[in-house]
Amino acid sequence: MRATLAYDGTDYSGFQRQANAPTVQAALEEAIRDVTREESGVIGAGRTDAGVHASGQVIAFDTSWIEDQASLGSEQSGRSAGDLQRALNAVLPADIALWELRLAVPGFHPRFDARSRRYRYNVYNAPARDPLSGRYSLHVKGAIDVEAMQQGASLLVGEHDFAAFGRPTQGDSTVRCVLAAEWGGEPPRLQFDIEANAFLYRMVRSIVGTLLEVGGGRLTADAVAEILASLDRDQAGTLAPARGLCLTEVKY
Amino acid sequence: MRATLAYDGTDYSGFQRQANAPTVQAALEEAIRDVTREESGVIGAGRTDAGVHASGQVIAFDTSWIEDQASLGSEQSGRSAGDLQRALNAVLPADIALWELRLAVPGFHPRFDARSRRYRYNVYNAPARDPLSGRYSLHVKGAIDVEAMQQGASLLVGEHDFAAFGRPTQGDSTVRCVLAAEWGGEPPRLQFDIEANAFLYRMVRSIVGTLLEVGGGRLTADAVAEILASLDRDQAGTLAPARGLCLTEVKY
Repeated sequence: MRATLAYDGTDYSGFQRQANAPTVQAALEEAIRDVTREESGVIGAGRTDAGVHASGQVIAFDTSWIEDQASLGSEQSGRSAGDLQRALNAVLPADIALWELRLAVPGFHPRFDARSRRYRYNVYNAPARDPLSGRYSLHVKGAIDVEAMQQGASLLVGEHDFAAFGRPTQGDSTVRCVLAAEWGGEPPRLQFDIEANAFLYRMVRSIVGTLLEVGGGRLTADAVAEILASLDRDQAGTLAPARGLCLTEVKY
Repeated sequence: MRATLAYDGTDYSGFQRQANAPTVQAALEEAIRDVTREESGVIGAGRTDAGVHASGQVIAFDTSWIEDQASLGSEQSGRSAGDLQRALNAVLPADIALWELRLAVPGFHPRFDARSRRYRYNVYNAPARDPLSGRYSLHVKGAIDVEAMQQGASLLVGEHDFAAFGRPTQGDSTVRCVLAAEWGGEPPRLQFDIEANAFLYRMVRSIVGTLLEVGGGRLTADAVAEILASLDRDQAGTLAPARGLCLTEVKY
């Protein structure tokens, strides 16, 4: 099965299963077990970090819950992908939901088959915080020069060695191809959308932290190119907090 | 002082102080005490119910924290309304924030002086819930006829006896003047904005519950006029949950 899902990552220690911490993967596998009475491993397209949200995570898992019935003939097969989706949403915690569920093409792998990932980082830029978006955005009090941040962001587009902005989660190449990096939104709500073939560990948050330094006038836009060229993680800005980040789309 | 504030009402038993429950008023009074070392009662424009949010609540309270200093002369007066706002925001819980704070005109009363209040009710209309807006909206799975809901809403505009939609919070008149009642937004995110000189207790949630019956085809739009005319609270639809409701503006 292939599913698109959304979650509020606030109360999870990230997507990937861990021994003694609540994770999105563990919650999904438990829901699948509850509904299908099968043990099924869930594979996600993006291993989002603790506190990071998603509105377009893609996962895959195996189940015979639907196929078993289908083998009885179309007249008899009472269980559709829609039934499984509804059943899973009924048992999943309120902060996780499957938005789409369908049969995957044979051999589909959400991570290896992905062509690109898209993330959005939300910034709330006003003197006082917004309690109604605090779970999903970073509050920045001071003035932000969005144009300067966009100049800095543009310098990241293309294939580069992003060693200054993160370490690899697998293999050891730190070369990635950023397809788009754009600031948008209307003040006080700013959004940074970034798409790449793949991301290094905490790369988006490191880039956002650096661009916010540019926005606050503590770095020039050109400094972003220098940091990139340095390949030195100590040159990048402070990691932006997880709560502003959301995995919005995975493209295949 | 006069302030505009926003809060996430999820964890509060409403605005108004209660003996053994967390309320927005109590949190504000505690923050004022922490900063000014004065006991000051806070008066709010709208007594929002448990779980109801606000992005435009207006309050008033007295303090000599600013005036004391001002009396020393403008050169000496180190404390501005902005200082007090920052100090209060620093000690308030993260789910409450003062967006504006200024000296009130003498005798200003947030509730009695208000000409009208505006509320927004958020509906998320899709087969599966949205974990990222679940705290601030009602999830409605089935198809909704927005046009029919708008027809029903239009019948409420004007001065009417709204006894069918709530009971008075003070006095015993149930006549209120609804100035606007409009559905908007883009599916799957629908918004109902309603403005009235004042509202009865739970009136907006009762109206939304009724309009959602119309939207789901279980009531006709004309039935809204019949329910209004009945003056009978048992005729109205089920109360819509508090989490979708937000006090967005108070006009003076």
